[in-house]
Amino acid sequence: MKATVHPSPWSGDRNREREIKRDAVLRAAAQAFNENGFHATSLDDVARRLNVTKPTLYYYVKSKNEILFECVRIALERLKSAIDEAGASGGTALDKLILAMEKYVGIITTDFGMCLIRIGEDPLPPESRKKLRGLKAGVDRELRRLIGQGIAEGLLEPCDPKLAAFTLAGALSWIGRWYRPDGSLSPEDIAAQCIAVLTSGMVKRARPKSAKRI
Amino acid sequence: MKATVHPSPWSGDRNREREIKRDAVLRAAAQAFNENGFHATSLDDVARRLNVTKPTLYYYVKSKNEILFECVRIALERLKSAIDEAGASGGTALDKLILAMEKYVGIITTDFGMCLIRIGEDPLPPESRKKLRGLKAGVDRELRRLIGQGIAEGLLEPCDPKLAAFTLAGALSWIGRWYRPDGSLSPEDIAAQCIAVLTSGMVKRARPKSAKRI
Repeated sequence: MKATVHPSPWSGDRNREREIKRDAVLRAAAQAFNENGFHATSLDDVARRLNVTKPTLYYYVKSKNEILFECVRIALERLKSAIDEAGASGGTALDKLILAMEKYVGIITTDFGMCLIRIGEDPLPPESRKKLRGLKAGVDRELRRLIGQGIAEGLLEPCDPKLAAFTLAGALSWIGRWYRPDGSLSPEDIAAQCIAVLTSGMVKRARPKSAKRI
Repeated sequence: MKATVHPSPWSGDRNREREIKRDAVLRAAAQAFNENGFHATSLDDVARRLNVTKPTLYYYVKSKNEILFECVRIALERLKSAIDEAGASGGTALDKLILAMEKYVGIITTDFGMCLIRIGEDPLPPESRKKLRGLKAGVDRELRRLIGQGIAEGLLEPCDPKLAAFTLAGALSWIGRWYRPDGSLSPEDIAAQCIAVLTSGMVKRARPKSAKRI
């Protein structure tokens, strides 16, 4: 079964092989967009990064717009799946929400996740933008649902789940703007500190007075 | 002195008049970018919104790129001034930080503020992007300074001011992505709820036990 895990170009599993190569094209393009911007990146730049010719690229993707659409779509679908998984895991609604936030940061710090935040759907035609916005709404809906559960379970402060979901998504998504894969902080460190602010707040909590003092 | 406050086209104060009209051009363009995206907006669209001809626009701005640069620059300079002002106001570092966040939301929900977040500098040439990133770094530096002060004064939980500043900026900036001027929530309502999450956290704080129960 090894051939399935590490498919060889000679394995005959052409669909799988094509998928892997297409993924490499999308990933190289996302890295170029993230580093230099969407408009400043040409398909020639992407081909150069992969050390292939431009006609080779066209075997996997039709256009720069198709690449961006796919990068953003993949990131949004991963976010949605991650939050769904967290929602289906054990524990309280707060445990689920924290797990969802950790997974969110993990995805937002990948090439596709950063591309979602740095470039997003703006350069695409209206029809594509509409589809991607539909996926975004799905991510948002799941976050709201988890927050609503947390309030219902008495673990979160009563609040407007819509606004709270936007606050979480904003703080976590923003990481995709400034994160550097070669920086000193790991996605896990960043997630931990960001989640601490969102769950416990920045203001120092009053220490409970000790029994002696009463 | 009325003529200075409401300059008339015949007042001879041509510089001031030009500035007001240029501001109207930038604002109309920002609204168009925010509603339809930068790429889908042409200078013809902007001229139509203002009910003027395209040649008239060229009297105030050279290009769509110049418009976007100015919209983003103005938003960033307003953010910087607002945080500086909050920093120079009275009270504790926490009071200053809260005031800075309120002002931040006020600016991010204007046409230029939304344009900063929805479009940003990505479509612009490298030189312009570099200048705008310098301004962004200034905004970020001021936020970090206020957070550092809050920790020094013992009012904020000890944390990495850099990460905390990014968390705040992310949550507050994200508002510019989803805010609708014709929506049901005012910028003040949004600011209050978002700031409550950032300062106090989402998790319900344990109620101090009453003396009776001890």
